[in-house]
Amino acid sequence: MIKKYYLLSPGPTPIPEKALSAAAEPIIHHRTPEFSAVFMEVTEGIKRVFGTKEDVYILTSSGTGAMEAAVVNLLSPGDKVLTINGGKFGERWGNICKAYGVAFKEIALDPWGKDFSKEELAAELKAMPDCKAVLATLSETSSGAMFDVQGFGEVVAKTQALLVVDGISGAGVTPCPMDDWKIDVFLSGSQKSFMIPPGLAFIALGPKAWAAAETAKLPKFYFDLKKAKKNLANKTTPWTPGVSLIIQQKHALDIIQAMGLEGLYAHHRALAEATRAGVKALGLELLAQRPGNVLTCCKVPDGIDGGKLVKTMQGKYRAYIAGGQDPYKGKIFRIAHLGYMGGFDIITALSALEMTLMDLGYAFEAGAGVKAAQAVLKENWQ
Amino acid sequence: MIKKYYLLSPGPTPIPEKALSAAAEPIIHHRTPEFSAVFMEVTEGIKRVFGTKEDVYILTSSGTGAMEAAVVNLLSPGDKVLTINGGKFGERWGNICKAYGVAFKEIALDPWGKDFSKEELAAELKAMPDCKAVLATLSETSSGAMFDVQGFGEVVAKTQALLVVDGISGAGVTPCPMDDWKIDVFLSGSQKSFMIPPGLAFIALGPKAWAAAETAKLPKFYFDLKKAKKNLANKTTPWTPGVSLIIQQKHALDIIQAMGLEGLYAHHRALAEATRAGVKALGLELLAQRPGNVLTCCKVPDGIDGGKLVKTMQGKYRAYIAGGQDPYKGKIFRIAHLGYMGGFDIITALSALEMTLMDLGYAFEAGAGVKAAQAVLKENWQ
Repeated sequence: MIKKYYLLSPGPTPIPEKALSAAAEPIIHHRTPEFSAVFMEVTEGIKRVFGTKEDVYILTSSGTGAMEAAVVNLLSPGDKVLTINGGKFGERWGNICKAYGVAFKEIALDPWGKDFSKEELAAELKAMPDCKAVLATLSETSSGAMFDVQGFGEVVAKTQALLVVDGISGAGVTPCPMDDWKIDVFLSGSQKSFMIPPGLAFIALGPKAWAAAETAKLPKFYFDLKKAKKNLANKTTPWTPGVSLIIQQKHALDIIQAMGLEGLYAHHRALAEATRAGVKALGLELLAQRPGNVLTCCKVPDGIDGGKLVKTMQGKYRAYIAGGQDPYKGKIFRIAHLGYMGGFDIITALSALEMTLMDLGYAFEAGAGVKAAQAVLKENWQ
Repeated sequence: MIKKYYLLSPGPTPIPEKALSAAAEPIIHHRTPEFSAVFMEVTEGIKRVFGTKEDVYILTSSGTGAMEAAVVNLLSPGDKVLTINGGKFGERWGNICKAYGVAFKEIALDPWGKDFSKEELAAELKAMPDCKAVLATLSETSSGAMFDVQGFGEVVAKTQALLVVDGISGAGVTPCPMDDWKIDVFLSGSQKSFMIPPGLAFIALGPKAWAAAETAKLPKFYFDLKKAKKNLANKTTPWTPGVSLIIQQKHALDIIQAMGLEGLYAHHRALAEATRAGVKALGLELLAQRPGNVLTCCKVPDGIDGGKLVKTMQGKYRAYIAGGQDPYKGKIFRIAHLGYMGGFDIITALSALEMTLMDLGYAFEAGAGVKAAQAVLKENWQ
């Protein structure tokens, strides 16, 4: 049998055909009116996904570059911040702070997938009146958890602190309007729901964040957003940008634009609900207390070898789901449903999962997962 | 007439068809054996171009990111360095140092294009025994000058200082074997002679540089090369890499590999000599005292409007040469001959230049530039 490769992991995600073929066109120079037109169109498209009136800056880096940009553009040595660590990506906020000498109190959620409420955040901030920023995550890709960013916004806006949100895997999947939700800094990356290859990161700052940027003393050069701001006024970037990726992004944004944000959220919700229904029908349990629509993170059932499960899915069935990371390696597996995926990608994922579970001797009603997902997809098919 | 677009500027440069079409293939996940194989092949290919036994780290950023990586991974606050500023890119070394609180003595070469000898460098280093690093440029893209990096290596190796060389536009165009020439840090970017779109940067550190990295105190996270080193041992990168660009790089390296480094240098030398012969036959003067083979930088002749010259080339003839930057705007123009260019791209450039000069009323023997270039190309055609 021809064993096709099915990409079902949380980034890079599948790329729409038009965005793929655009990368095969001869490249153009970046200091030209032709490129500036595409660049500004992409900037505007990302602004719409971010739900902001602020300018969005396109960085040529992975999403981590935008996280670093947030820290170095807002803070000064000795500043104190709160980080919400619900997994590998929440933990990264602390690692960046450590590298730059920013004092941080880490709220370590244990186990991964545990929720953190706005009331708990309010209590933390009350106990830390000199907190300069709250570094949070919209969707924690390592656990499948979604956080109450809207609630965080209500709480943080009443303080002097800034709310910085890593929306790398969450933006475009689930509503998170930056301005309405009082988010001071929002950032994302190109290889998730923006549907193009990795290599670009996006970041926007609200007025409170720009005021902080005026006095921030941490050193920066490549990620200096004041330079990006100055250059954006001339419809360009300070350094040579990822020209081909930006052109691909235009084509992916055309699809996003045609669906509309509500359509995009409904699409992801339907895929997520179908996946959750499917895995629950197989008797599997989710890791996240508040699961999001980006990916579904399941606990490996007792008696099953988690490493073998992921290896079989990837190797035998070529269904590229992701395994667990760090302490959760072998204990969880993650099925993504974000970006350019269709309903039958979910059927593929669940079918490969069922066939894998059969291989591993897990007892369940064959076909139950696919059947449950079909019902949800059918209901939402429009 | 169909007005085709001819890219003749120093980056991005034209991309080979196989590297273009590779970008149109569905993307694969980066934490897989399939990607690791490509990634390691590309790493090895770049090592060969760099002329080093050291590992090369692939950063997802523009070339400036690799320049910043060099500074933050080698130095500590208060360190003193020498920067050789022969134009916009040499000047950038100083700007990065300034941003990170590194004390630098700038050797400002005036006018742009002025050479700087190894003897002059030796004298500077003698007067600055605590110099920690010399930050130099192989090919200064803003002036077309090539520097005596081999000579710099001889001089710097006798001191405690490190020799850091920006080879962004020069690597792969002109010989610069990192190990043989005693270069401690060498770096480049993807969109020049590496023949793919912008978005990747490459950097390698020799033993003296790694020793400095052990004690370097400047803050870093995204560009932390110790993290890159640790991850490379596992055939991967610390952050999600520019997957599609790395795959494109494999295809461009196949071409480079097939030509061999000597073939690549001979190719660029022939194009550069043809261009220089062409512009000299038109009575034009070069800016650089020691012109390199990356690009040819000409002074705009008296009585000609330099802005109009570039605008006509780009707009009317769609021949995308570059103008001058900063103080040299309107005073020079730059024809690139690097990467995936053929002999007839030089003929196109010179022909468009001649037609433009006719439009602007410059007196010269029509056809003389093309004729002179043809002779050089014919001589080297093999």
